[in-house]
Amino acid sequence: MTAARGGCIFPGAIIVALWGTLCFAAADHEKLLTDPGVYGTFAAYSFDEEWAKEDEATRIAHLAVLKGVVEQHRKKIAIDLYLMQGLSDHADILFRSHATELRDIQEFLVDLQNSTFGKHLRTAGVMHGLTKKANYVPGFSDQLKADLKTASEPGPNPYVIVIPIRKSADWWALDQKKRAAMMKEHTEASLPYHKTVKRKLYHSTGLDDMDFITYFETSKMEDFHSLILSLQKVKEFQYTRRFGHPTWIGTATSLDEIIEVLAH
Amino acid sequence: MTAARGGCIFPGAIIVALWGTLCFAAADHEKLLTDPGVYGTFAAYSFDEEWAKEDEATRIAHLAVLKGVVEQHRKKIAIDLYLMQGLSDHADILFRSHATELRDIQEFLVDLQNSTFGKHLRTAGVMHGLTKKANYVPGFSDQLKADLKTASEPGPNPYVIVIPIRKSADWWALDQKKRAAMMKEHTEASLPYHKTVKRKLYHSTGLDDMDFITYFETSKMEDFHSLILSLQKVKEFQYTRRFGHPTWIGTATSLDEIIEVLAH
Amino acid sequence: MTAARGGCIFPGAIIVALWGTLCFAAADHEKLLTDPGVYGTFAAYSFDEEWAKEDEATRIAHLAVLKGVVEQHRKKIAIDLYLMQGLSDHADILFRSHATELRDIQEFLVDLQNSTFGKHLRTAGVMHGLTKKANYVPGFSDQLKADLKTASEPGPNPYVIVIPIRKSADWWALDQKKRAAMMKEHTEASLPYHKTVKRKLYHSTGLDDMDFITYFETSKMEDFHSLILSLQKVKEFQYTRRFGHPTWIGTATSLDEIIEVLAH
Amino acid sequence: MTAARGGCIFPGAIIVALWGTLCFAAADHEKLLTDPGVYGTFAAYSFDEEWAKEDEATRIAHLAVLKGVVEQHRKKIAIDLYLMQGLSDHADILFRSHATELRDIQEFLVDLQNSTFGKHLRTAGVMHGLTKKANYVPGFSDQLKADLKTASEPGPNPYVIVIPIRKSADWWALDQKKRAAMMKEHTEASLPYHKTVKRKLYHSTGLDDMDFITYFETSKMEDFHSLILSLQKVKEFQYTRRFGHPTWIGTATSLDEIIEVLAH
Amino acid sequence: MTAARGGCIFPGAIIVALWGTLCFAAADHEKLLTDPGVYGTFAAYSFDEEWAKEDEATRIAHLAVLKGVVEQHRKKIAIDLYLMQGLSDHADILFRSHATELRDIQEFLVDLQNSTFGKHLRTAGVMHGLTKKANYVPGFSDQLKADLKTASEPGPNPYVIVIPIRKSADWWALDQKKRAAMMKEHTEASLPYHKTVKRKLYHSTGLDDMDFITYFETSKMEDFHSLILSLQKVKEFQYTRRFGHPTWIGTATSLDEIIEVLAH
Repeated sequence: MTAARGGCIFPGAIIVALWGTLCFAAADHEKLLTDPGVYGTFAAYSFDEEWAKEDEATRIAHLAVLKGVVEQHRKKIAIDLYLMQGLSDHADILFRSHATELRDIQEFLVDLQNSTFGKHLRTAGVMHGLTKKANYVPGFSDQLKADLKTASEPGPNPYVIVIPIRKSADWWALDQKKRAAMMKEHTEASLPYHKTVKRKLYHSTGLDDMDFITYFETSKMEDFHSLILSLQKVKEFQYTRRFGHPTWIGTATSLDEIIEVLAH
Repeated sequence: MTAARGGCIFPGAIIVALWGTLCFAAADHEKLLTDPGVYGTFAAYSFDEEWAKEDEATRIAHLAVLKGVVEQHRKKIAIDLYLMQGLSDHADILFRSHATELRDIQEFLVDLQNSTFGKHLRTAGVMHGLTKKANYVPGFSDQLKADLKTASEPGPNPYVIVIPIRKSADWWALDQKKRAAMMKEHTEASLPYHKTVKRKLYHSTGLDDMDFITYFETSKMEDFHSLILSLQKVKEFQYTRRFGHPTWIGTATSLDEIIEVLAH
Repeated sequence: MTAARGGCIFPGAIIVALWGTLCFAAADHEKLLTDPGVYGTFAAYSFDEEWAKEDEATRIAHLAVLKGVVEQHRKKIAIDLYLMQGLSDHADILFRSHATELRDIQEFLVDLQNSTFGKHLRTAGVMHGLTKKANYVPGFSDQLKADLKTASEPGPNPYVIVIPIRKSADWWALDQKKRAAMMKEHTEASLPYHKTVKRKLYHSTGLDDMDFITYFETSKMEDFHSLILSLQKVKEFQYTRRFGHPTWIGTATSLDEIIEVLAH
Repeated sequence: MTAARGGCIFPGAIIVALWGTLCFAAADHEKLLTDPGVYGTFAAYSFDEEWAKEDEATRIAHLAVLKGVVEQHRKKIAIDLYLMQGLSDHADILFRSHATELRDIQEFLVDLQNSTFGKHLRTAGVMHGLTKKANYVPGFSDQLKADLKTASEPGPNPYVIVIPIRKSADWWALDQKKRAAMMKEHTEASLPYHKTVKRKLYHSTGLDDMDFITYFETSKMEDFHSLILSLQKVKEFQYTRRFGHPTWIGTATSLDEIIEVLAH
Repeated sequence: MTAARGGCIFPGAIIVALWGTLCFAAADHEKLLTDPGVYGTFAAYSFDEEWAKEDEATRIAHLAVLKGVVEQHRKKIAIDLYLMQGLSDHADILFRSHATELRDIQEFLVDLQNSTFGKHLRTAGVMHGLTKKANYVPGFSDQLKADLKTASEPGPNPYVIVIPIRKSADWWALDQKKRAAMMKEHTEASLPYHKTVKRKLYHSTGLDDMDFITYFETSKMEDFHSLILSLQKVKEFQYTRRFGHPTWIGTATSLDEIIEVLAH
């Protein structure tokens, strides 16, 4: 498999031609993936039992429909795909959608679910979050700010992990200063893994039964494991009421790669 | 999509004629949505796997039946519809029904579920509540009372969020005065979002496995997120045992719009 | 809908003739509903997806079988029926059975589930309890005892609510005197609703994953809501580990009425 | 229904001839039911929806297969059957198997599940335990030991209740002496029900998500209820983290009786 | 049944020829099972209802496909099979896969699930872990280190138990020294079972909703039970938030043996 970098999908050579235009059109994709005030929806699906029984030609026809639906909505939405099959319990594929309006994402997912392809999908889970400006970073020391700016290692990050988090009522009852001090400790603990584990945070309070969706990309799962282990040892972790449940794990993949996997 | 304002549905121009009479007849609808002593039932459904396989003509015939059932019961009940598909985990549509007797709502939902349309529905969840006069407002300061009367911004509020809440036994053991003081703090924290997030409260103790159903309408999901974040920081939140689970999120829509979405 | 009073079903005029004999035979029904040492089983079912697809003639034939099974077992068992459809999440009908031996109820439910009607039922939940002499009443003041004897308002009580309760280990570790004092407070809090909300208590410890099944009948759901709200404010509520989950809500109905609803 | 006494099944007169040999062969059955170091597996199943649709002849053929599978494995395993239908939520029949090796029980259940009868079964739950010598009894007073030896009342015990128990970490952290003192109190509380409620204990730590499976037989469910109520009032109960969930309740029955019930 | 020793499968004589080469090729298998830095994935499946209805010839054809998929991936992955049917609730077979990259395991499981055999499988659960160098052993006394090196009894270990564990936030907040002292006590408590119960530890923090997957092999289930009982009595157990849920139990078996069991 190849990996998705930013919002632009780099598939294997044989399909570069096809996706070239999409990457071009996805200039705003990059912006959606970096700006604050953007909604991110994680929608995981499993295939129904009929899917496996369709012959290859029918599956390919359905997958062409999937492609059409995705392309149609890529004008407004940045859409990433991940293959969860074989790594996660009850889901096979994951769509991550970024848009400035949640309704645009709803329209995409409604179209997807009602397409001939989508009729074979069962919703395994949907989670919403919102990107915001960093909350605690402005108060950090210049050194810590500089450390956070270190570029991450180039190259594909095939593994993607999605972990929803709910903080305890005690956390929210703390004053901003105490929370900031703990988040500083949290951030320092994460620094050694800054280069190899890419992180993105979504704020979910009210939008779902959690406070945050944490999203990670890495090529080194062992580093990711060490990162989470470090984060469990800082004080802020004691204010965590839910961590995972589910933990979604998948591999970044292009639409065409997924089509190839699913066609057979 | 267009939005539902109050109990009266304003669909796109092409269907205004059809709904004109319904809006006219729905004079009591407004009253049901504002009076205390009214029962509100939230019933969410998902489509079964057969639905997707029906051809368009059959689906349209079923949807005409849905329309008939809703119209027949609108004399006694204020019925609102929301599209949850694409935004919520395991439900596609949500009916909110207001009536002075719970039995009237039961009769509507029994008719709905036993109709040829309803045979394709699976119940995802049913929650009941009762509207009551404001509990703590009478003791608030004149200023706070005045602030609460500020009109909310005009225009459609496409997003609807439904969050069930259960308070802890400790909350109910507090005397009324302490609860009132905390509700004052709660109310003050919500004031900045008063204009852009419309709220409605249903009392559920005994009627369901929760104490309250909180219902929100907004066009600015980010404001709604900020509102809930503020409410999680006041003392009263520490007495909350269940918040969400599920959090239902959907978009306000007219019956005709939903019919259009579902027909294809 | 009409309502069930005691164990004797009073259907609409058109079916009085039919049920007259049953009511006559049900002399012991009344006794089963008032005596201590009687087992009460609440069995809730939902219809399978095939049921909706049967034509009316087949459904009527199945319902005649239901009627036969119920009549056959009414000699030993007091059987009440409630319509949960439209009011409860995952159940459509509820059978409440009273008998002096749990095996008699098992035989009824086995016959029911294995009948051509029962083959369309999916068990949503089964709960068992035992009626016992009042535990704490003997120690109450004469005034409180007198208040408890106030007759409830005549007339039908269409709404039925079933709430399972599990007390905490701390409750059972209290000595009888402390528990009695708290139950006195509990009883006093319930007095204002004595006339409009009928209560019946089943002891379930060991028979199921709960300590009590509380059963309520009322025509005024708002009073029932106020009753539970009052009970949540007394000290004894702090010793409640489970309250509901599920809360079952339905409407009392006669077998013939249910047959009429289900036939169409 | 008739009841199972020990490991030997006493069916109605018409099937005595058939089972006579089995009872004879089941000499070790009694030993398996009383010896320490024996594995006990409780496997509960519900019927699939196809079962109800099979005609009587087919069902009888399937049940003959069930009989064959059970007879084949009775050489190594003591197998008891219980009818849960009508009394428990999501299971219809329960097999209790005793053997000196868990693999022998696995082989039986694999054969059962893969038989033409078993293809209609859905696993509702499987729990494993191990019989051991009494842990605390050696330290009891002579009087208490003598009381425990009182013979239970003769006659059938039709009701069977199975309750899994998990103790808290605090329980296991107590020293043996403190645990023994509490188990003495526990045992004394159970004495009044010694004659009418037969108990058997299985140790499950590590073998399953619980520490104990408690198994009860009685003809007097009210006594069983009073026994559990008494046990909830002793100090040891405060160290119980899980009690039931599920509570399985059924009636002891012979294979031939179950065949008769299931054939129709 | 015969047992799997290390990563090399020793089936009965009749299939030795077939597997000889595989064992030969599996030189790295042993390394994958002993090295640190290796990913271990436990994937449990149950059969769908169609499987039971396939005739023997079709099942054998499907099982040949299973064999092909396993053989194809054995170059990169060490694959072990366990039969859970009859011992575990909702799973029939368990695959344990070891590889240096999680993606290789994903590719195997995707191929497995999408094969004609895999189309009859429903995912019951997937758990991931990582092997690491012993954390606390370096600080142990020489005596304890020597005790840990005692060879386990030779011979097959047919029983396999898999228990996921999540530690509390308090555990991770302890300093390394305190955790090490408790792990020393934990290790000493396990010594008496060192010869008869083989253990393997996988670190899961971040990779799944748990911190560890503990894997046990034994021929003496009673010793395994005693081991877990001992471990529940040491202080470290008080910092365990989740133990099991599920506890998976199965028997080690070769691919050919499973094929033989499943073919009939």
